[in-house]
Amino acid sequence: MKRLFRALLISMLISTAALAQSDPLPSWNEGPVKQSIIQFVHAVTTPGTDFVPPADRIATFDNDGTLWAEKPLIQGLFAIFRVHRMVARNPALKNQQPYKAVIEKDKGYFEKAGLKEIIHLFNLTHSGMTSTAFAEEVQLFFNTVKHPTLRTSLYQAIYKPQLELLNYLRANGFKTFICSGGTVDFMRVVSDTLYGIPAEQVIGSELKYKYVDSAGVNDIMRLPGMTTFNDKQEKPVNIQFHIGKRPILACGNEGGAGDVYMLRFSQGSPYKSLQLIVNHDDAAREFEYGEKDNKSLNMAKQYYWQVISMKNDWNTVFP
Amino acid sequence: MKRLFRALLISMLISTAALAQSDPLPSWNEGPVKQSIIQFVHAVTTPGTDFVPPADRIATFDNDGTLWAEKPLIQGLFAIFRVHRMVARNPALKNQQPYKAVIEKDKGYFEKAGLKEIIHLFNLTHSGMTSTAFAEEVQLFFNTVKHPTLRTSLYQAIYKPQLELLNYLRANGFKTFICSGGTVDFMRVVSDTLYGIPAEQVIGSELKYKYVDSAGVNDIMRLPGMTTFNDKQEKPVNIQFHIGKRPILACGNEGGAGDVYMLRFSQGSPYKSLQLIVNHDDAAREFEYGEKDNKSLNMAKQYYWQVISMKNDWNTVFP
Repeated sequence: MKRLFRALLISMLISTAALAQSDPLPSWNEGPVKQSIIQFVHAVTTPGTDFVPPADRIATFDNDGTLWAEKPLIQGLFAIFRVHRMVARNPALKNQQPYKAVIEKDKGYFEKAGLKEIIHLFNLTHSGMTSTAFAEEVQLFFNTVKHPTLRTSLYQAIYKPQLELLNYLRANGFKTFICSGGTVDFMRVVSDTLYGIPAEQVIGSELKYKYVDSAGVNDIMRLPGMTTFNDKQEKPVNIQFHIGKRPILACGNEGGAGDVYMLRFSQGSPYKSLQLIVNHDDAAREFEYGEKDNKSLNMAKQYYWQVISMKNDWNTVFP
Repeated sequence: MKRLFRALLISMLISTAALAQSDPLPSWNEGPVKQSIIQFVHAVTTPGTDFVPPADRIATFDNDGTLWAEKPLIQGLFAIFRVHRMVARNPALKNQQPYKAVIEKDKGYFEKAGLKEIIHLFNLTHSGMTSTAFAEEVQLFFNTVKHPTLRTSLYQAIYKPQLELLNYLRANGFKTFICSGGTVDFMRVVSDTLYGIPAEQVIGSELKYKYVDSAGVNDIMRLPGMTTFNDKQEKPVNIQFHIGKRPILACGNEGGAGDVYMLRFSQGSPYKSLQLIVNHDDAAREFEYGEKDNKSLNMAKQYYWQVISMKNDWNTVFP
């Protein structure tokens, strides 16, 4: 009797383990989106008409609102962090704009001054230093600043279901890339820790760089001004430049219609491909927001992309 | 007796195999350069003070004159190939410059017209088509055109010792990249076949791109004009943009001093690093050429880079 009980217990443990193992996406609810992902991965990895050689299993993910929360933009928090660091080092700055407005949380100033002043703030906080110094600032930011609304570490502001998806894809021979509007040297400081995506697989916006090798400096200087703003039609352009292959899986989010061309580019692959778009419809656990013209969701309908409802498709949002 | 002979033969075969296996660089002659490579790889992969985590084992190689022969420039041969293709499709072009000069092998025309006309020819032959069409042209070129002086397939114009080095590095956990002045979409069509380097690990010069998704076209259009000419100080800039890590091994060649800043950037790594520069000193088996000011070799001396003498360090040049 005791032996039977033990045998039963063991077999139960084994089947639970097997079940856990058989579901690579435990934070995803059963439904058409999860099914489409699993069917797609099965199709492209199984010998047959839809098989894709491992070298061409490229997956690209947007970052803001797709892999981590974007309300507020985490890189915006970094700009504020930088202002405080710069003012601490040089207190006179706190009487100068745009530092003053940041320190005093004077949103009206930026509303009045417009985009030009926001770009100016971006340049002030992101340039004028070496790449090495910038990476140190970014690391310090992630290690000290908390998310203002989620009240967690920034390392916890990422979507758990997406982490599972990234791991699932990699376990099936995919090479996973970030392709985001955030600047590349900002994201790549933490991309490996957060998502298991190495620095060289991060595509993003970037400032002007200049190589300096003189007077004891051997580094890339970060200059004001952008060389590329990796959004909308620039995403396929930078994917071509960096990867040179169309992603067979592309995942973005609705909110600013920044990802629709990356998804269209993916859809032009000669291979079977899958396009996913995260819908921010979960006011309770994350946020609820959309586009005025509903462009992303309209295109999703037109082109048969899978829309991920955070509310319905994810049983867990944050880790 | 027969048995003894058989046993001896087997043991000889085994030890020959073991010997072959123990030398990862059989086309390299014994000497300080080969020793420096093997000692370096051993140091960075062995637990201890010089150990480098696999994720940071980045190696970058120039292409023209470093991985394949650059007399003449293979991408120049492609421009000529393209002119012939364009004229075949539209015979009227053969009476127009610069097509006429190419067809008639009129070098004087380009010497007189100068760099501007060469850039114009480059744009005419490399732009005005989709990335997909361009890749097909490049593939056709490599499959049909022979090397004019080596009299071999272009696939044979690569340096065998460098192939061994690339394989040796990868076997030791390195990620190998091309970082060359050639345009990225030209090299990456063959980089995997030639060197085992996937498209996404090729850094190069590039034209302007524009993403088009209309009228049945869903592709990257190649426009005239360069976004980056990946040479000299631009190499560290593009390494930073694409990889975001300093290479711990960088290999270039003397001839145009195009690689010295890539090597300096590598040398600025906080890790132990190795810089290599190919010296074209082998008129018999390849070519003999140098720089008027000897900049690369002077810097090699100043900064303790290893100079690879094709004549002395390589027992075989081409496969």
